[in-house]
Amino acid sequence: MKHLTGIQHLDSDQLNMLLDTAERIKECEEDYAGILQGQCVANLFFEPSTRSRFSFEVAEKRLGAYVLNFQEATSSRQKGESIYDTLKTLEAIGVKAAVIRHSQNGLLDDMHPRIGLALINAGTGNEEHPTQCLLDLLTIKQEFGCFRGLKVAIVGDVHHSRVARSNYYGLTKLGAEVYFAGPPCLNQAGASWVPRGCWYPFDELVEEMDVIMMLRIQHERHEQALTLSKADYHQHYGLTEERARRMKKGAIIMHPAPVNRDVELASTLVEAPQSRIFKQMENGVYVRMAVLYHLLGPAAKRQVQPVNKGAFPLGAFPGT
Amino acid sequence: MKHLTGIQHLDSDQLNMLLDTAERIKECEEDYAGILQGQCVANLFFEPSTRSRFSFEVAEKRLGAYVLNFQEATSSRQKGESIYDTLKTLEAIGVKAAVIRHSQNGLLDDMHPRIGLALINAGTGNEEHPTQCLLDLLTIKQEFGCFRGLKVAIVGDVHHSRVARSNYYGLTKLGAEVYFAGPPCLNQAGASWVPRGCWYPFDELVEEMDVIMMLRIQHERHEQALTLSKADYHQHYGLTEERARRMKKGAIIMHPAPVNRDVELASTLVEAPQSRIFKQMENGVYVRMAVLYHLLGPAAKRQVQPVNKGAFPLGAFPGT
Amino acid sequence: MKHLTGIQHLDSDQLNMLLDTAERIKECEEDYAGILQGQCVANLFFEPSTRSRFSFEVAEKRLGAYVLNFQEATSSRQKGESIYDTLKTLEAIGVKAAVIRHSQNGLLDDMHPRIGLALINAGTGNEEHPTQCLLDLLTIKQEFGCFRGLKVAIVGDVHHSRVARSNYYGLTKLGAEVYFAGPPCLNQAGASWVPRGCWYPFDELVEEMDVIMMLRIQHERHEQALTLSKADYHQHYGLTEERARRMKKGAIIMHPAPVNRDVELASTLVEAPQSRIFKQMENGVYVRMAVLYHLLGPAAKRQVQPVNKGAFPLGAFPGT
Repeated sequence: MKHLTGIQHLDSDQLNMLLDTAERIKECEEDYAGILQGQCVANLFFEPSTRSRFSFEVAEKRLGAYVLNFQEATSSRQKGESIYDTLKTLEAIGVKAAVIRHSQNGLLDDMHPRIGLALINAGTGNEEHPTQCLLDLLTIKQEFGCFRGLKVAIVGDVHHSRVARSNYYGLTKLGAEVYFAGPPCLNQAGASWVPRGCWYPFDELVEEMDVIMMLRIQHERHEQALTLSKADYHQHYGLTEERARRMKKGAIIMHPAPVNRDVELASTLVEAPQSRIFKQMENGVYVRMAVLYHLLGPAAKRQVQPVNKGAFPLGAFPGT
Repeated sequence: MKHLTGIQHLDSDQLNMLLDTAERIKECEEDYAGILQGQCVANLFFEPSTRSRFSFEVAEKRLGAYVLNFQEATSSRQKGESIYDTLKTLEAIGVKAAVIRHSQNGLLDDMHPRIGLALINAGTGNEEHPTQCLLDLLTIKQEFGCFRGLKVAIVGDVHHSRVARSNYYGLTKLGAEVYFAGPPCLNQAGASWVPRGCWYPFDELVEEMDVIMMLRIQHERHEQALTLSKADYHQHYGLTEERARRMKKGAIIMHPAPVNRDVELASTLVEAPQSRIFKQMENGVYVRMAVLYHLLGPAAKRQVQPVNKGAFPLGAFPGT
Repeated sequence: MKHLTGIQHLDSDQLNMLLDTAERIKECEEDYAGILQGQCVANLFFEPSTRSRFSFEVAEKRLGAYVLNFQEATSSRQKGESIYDTLKTLEAIGVKAAVIRHSQNGLLDDMHPRIGLALINAGTGNEEHPTQCLLDLLTIKQEFGCFRGLKVAIVGDVHHSRVARSNYYGLTKLGAEVYFAGPPCLNQAGASWVPRGCWYPFDELVEEMDVIMMLRIQHERHEQALTLSKADYHQHYGLTEERARRMKKGAIIMHPAPVNRDVELASTLVEAPQSRIFKQMENGVYVRMAVLYHLLGPAAKRQVQPVNKGAFPLGAFPGT
């Protein structure tokens, strides 16, 4: 694996390998401390972020890497430098991986063949957010042990959500069944990647699902303002306390956060026993450490050897 | 001690313990290097800062912690995430302490019972700035050895100053006598925590004081623009060269900085022999190291043991 | 050497010493890792930067220093604090060197006698950018071995370029011949430091030069908008593919970047075999490590000994 641009390009072996590594790091983190000592990772967030931004930085530092935090407003982007030239610059000064969040779909796919450092997608447009998917997968795996036959509902602003899309790819590759619900006004035109017949009224799903994954309303990516009031959204498409009471025993609530409290989710549910929202964040650090480990760690260096799918399967897939 | 929200909640034993630790760190810093190795501290400054911000970062790094610098403008605050949810996020990704500056009074008091990481107040509203108080106390202690009977004037924009209030609490708890002076137009309505009878004309205080602590005019917290000209402020309420000449032998000048030169203080006095302004800044690093040591260091970890006031007194005070 | 304010103040021995150190670091970097352990360096960039800003940070971290990244917008500059008081603050909290970029000519010269920490100029006004010069010199030395008799053209917006000026000082001190070309509309009034008779039509230089150093158009320092179109600039003063084909065998192309592609330089030339643009960036890390080594490293500490020009020549020059 040279880059991590999207879940779409990974197969189930690669997904499982990343999840296994994340679990191993969680169990014996001290074995991984300092494993990236002397390697430099840059974080380039062109859109606001708290969780992804800082959990990447924590992951990088726990592995011993040193970290550059790029900020567009104080960079040579102000003098017209392109993102491609910015990345080539970072490569030239010794940066080994760049973690990138940007509003533009396809940004990394266009560039990665010409860039020597490892590109890690931390959210692009409404396209992919692969490490969010990995942390969601890890949270589900911790809860249920496996994915085959699990029923997962993804609910809300599906069309504008890169989280939904990456999770759809990841969950189905690992054998889960994915159902969708959400306001037609947001999803009607888009989300073309959702197969026909996968949309349901939320109330039909609530009692059947093992996982209810609520999505943030992506106001920043809406072409026009949402006409639904917050209260109406909550009542029709939100996880209300009433809906939560109807959930299956053992089912869990997920949300990529930040939560619009009392819109997507009743505020009281955020820290409720069925919620895994903070567990998701905690897992975010481990999956990001796993990604960095596979891209920059000792295994990565051996990719010049003849490809050995068993040990380093990601190296074997030209698509990644 | 689980949090440091204000001097108001500390007693003299706790203050002395923090000052003693700061002095010990100053004398043999190498004994403390790396003591927070592998622990993560986040700095969240919602108001501008140079001194507090960077001396906290220096303190954190000298102790071996790794540091996250949160910036509101590039964070999920832009998507509407609350400070509470931001702190819960940081907690979930493994942050052990959050250093917070914010314009809102009471912010930390509302939250600290529900937050697992240590909160450190780096200035809230016009309420408290406990580490500034600690560095001021350390500077005074270095000069005079003790506090009992010392006369300290706090002069200027008292009402809007969190520095004045924290210092008033700290100095009186340790036995110093505190006097106030400053323009009535700024202080008339407010500073209700100053006891009646503690206000004096500045000129009556100048010759009697051991410490003259000038305050910055907090323009950013004024509801309406100051009508006094800079020259008038300086002449009536500033420490002019003439007033400085009338100071008692051995008396010192303090200011939390940044100084409005030739307004609160004659510019020539900033680096004058009686000034301790840069000494205050230097001490800021040591007191912040001491606070971090008590919140996160080896002693902190033993707080689960039965409380032993002698060794770890701060753990014994539920108010903190 | 206590500060690095400009190439103008250095002599050829000092330049050679810095280049030699940079080469040694490049060859055996592990000997220098951690040499600044426990020392604190602050980066203060008052103008946008990607290359200088991050290559300084990489250099600082590779040497083991810990790093503070000052940002004007969130600092006490917002409360009116001067740059001088900001630097005195950093000095007081233990910072050993400050890397400064600012639009104001002469800023560092005014301050350095009163500042205890080492000042490193990372670009001031249109005056000097000494570490850019050093990395350009290193790149040329790697290519040609020495400077005597080398022909270097500096082409473009010479008047507004601090890179041009530092390189002119550096190259001539080391024995190279420097020629200038560029649009009269930009250079007519200014660049008074260029000796008469050094300006040539670009086309007369192209075939004769060993090094063609193109400059970025410094739009941000123009008093009025450039009337030349991009296409006209490129045709008359840019390094077109056609001009590049006429270059001498073995001659190289340089540019401090960011490049305005297809204006100063044909886009295809940026990564062409004759281009050293990314090599320049890579060398930027080594020369900055060399500067930090001489200002803060073991040699620097011995400057209190009687000055020994052979070993530590920079200490011998009061002008620096």
